Amino acid sequence: METLQLTETTSAHITPDQLLQYWQGNRRLTRRVIAAFPDEHFATFSIGGMRSFADITLEMLDMAEGMPGLAHGVWKTMEELAHVGEERPKTKAEILQRWDAATRQIDELWPALTPERMQQVDKAFGMYEGPVYSTLLYFIDNEIHHRGQGYVYLRALGVEPPPFWDRH
Amino acid sequence: METLQLTETTSAHITPDQLLQYWQGNRRLTRRVIAAFPDEHFATFSIGGMRSFADITLEMLDMAEGMPGLAHGVWKTMEELAHVGEERPKTKAEILQRWDAATRQIDELWPALTPERMQQVDKAFGMYEGPVYSTLLYFIDNEIHHRGQGYVYLRALGVEPPPFWDRH
Repeated sequence: METLQLTETTSAHITPDQLLQYWQGNRRLTRRVIAAFPDEHFATFSIGGMRSFADITLEMLDMAEGMPGLAHGVWKTMEELAHVGEERPKTKAEILQRWDAATRQIDELWPALTPERMQQVDKAFGMYEGPVYSTLLYFIDNEIHHRGQGYVYLRALGVEPPPFWDRH
Repeated sequence: METLQLTETTSAHITPDQLLQYWQGNRRLTRRVIAAFPDEHFATFSIGGMRSFADITLEMLDMAEGMPGLAHGVWKTMEELAHVGEERPKTKAEILQRWDAATRQIDELWPALTPERMQQVDKAFGMYEGPVYSTLLYFIDNEIHHRGQGYVYLRALGVEPPPFWDRH
């Protein structure tokens, strides 16, 4: 009996490359929101007791930098995440540099996210158990969620945010 | 030559059912955010000149109710969307009722979103052209984005929002 392997393009409702482009398109938009944020308010402005946008972007970075975990199960521990406090970037320029490094790493490691890997159960950061696809979707929607909060901060500061629909 | 059809589970990095559960899980969370919003502020509270959460949820509903478009290309026009202003629900109870009807419709029509349909190019609301999968992802991320704004409104109003990670 012959076995035919269907190509991803014909068998998938969303191909892996389309999902990668979706993620990176969202990350490009988030990058523009960070770049648009007034420097003098980046680490201090807050509404309703919420975190500064600087702190929020560091959480987004922790997740984007979790790509070795998604791809190969190589995760930072929660403790390691907490301990890097002192070395953490503080300025927008430092954060954007780290952002771009994560962008390259995501592209490089993406091919490891095979259907088999996406369906494997893993423990993100040694703590959050679930199939890899689910952790990936959570990384994406967590960023969209917090970016939406950044839009409100920008509006409250009188700054017009980048258009939401533009992902180029 | 024999042709074998791979099952969705083995060929897809995310199965259609997993994507449906992801969408509906996000919609369950949004529903809880709407339910948690103080009635007296629902149609009026704003930060930085942004829309009220009532107006925002109506946009979310327009997209969720676009399921017949995603499934079968049956779209409301932009004009129809704009014209329904007078008949639109005003209270949280009315909106939640419409929310639940959309939830049922999404479940019912979901099987029509085959890989072939997901990759077809269509014009959402007669206006926004793109592959169906891309429109669907936009519907989802638009809701996450605006729900994130709702979280800031709730915090500014002194209300603890529902936990973001809970999608049950």
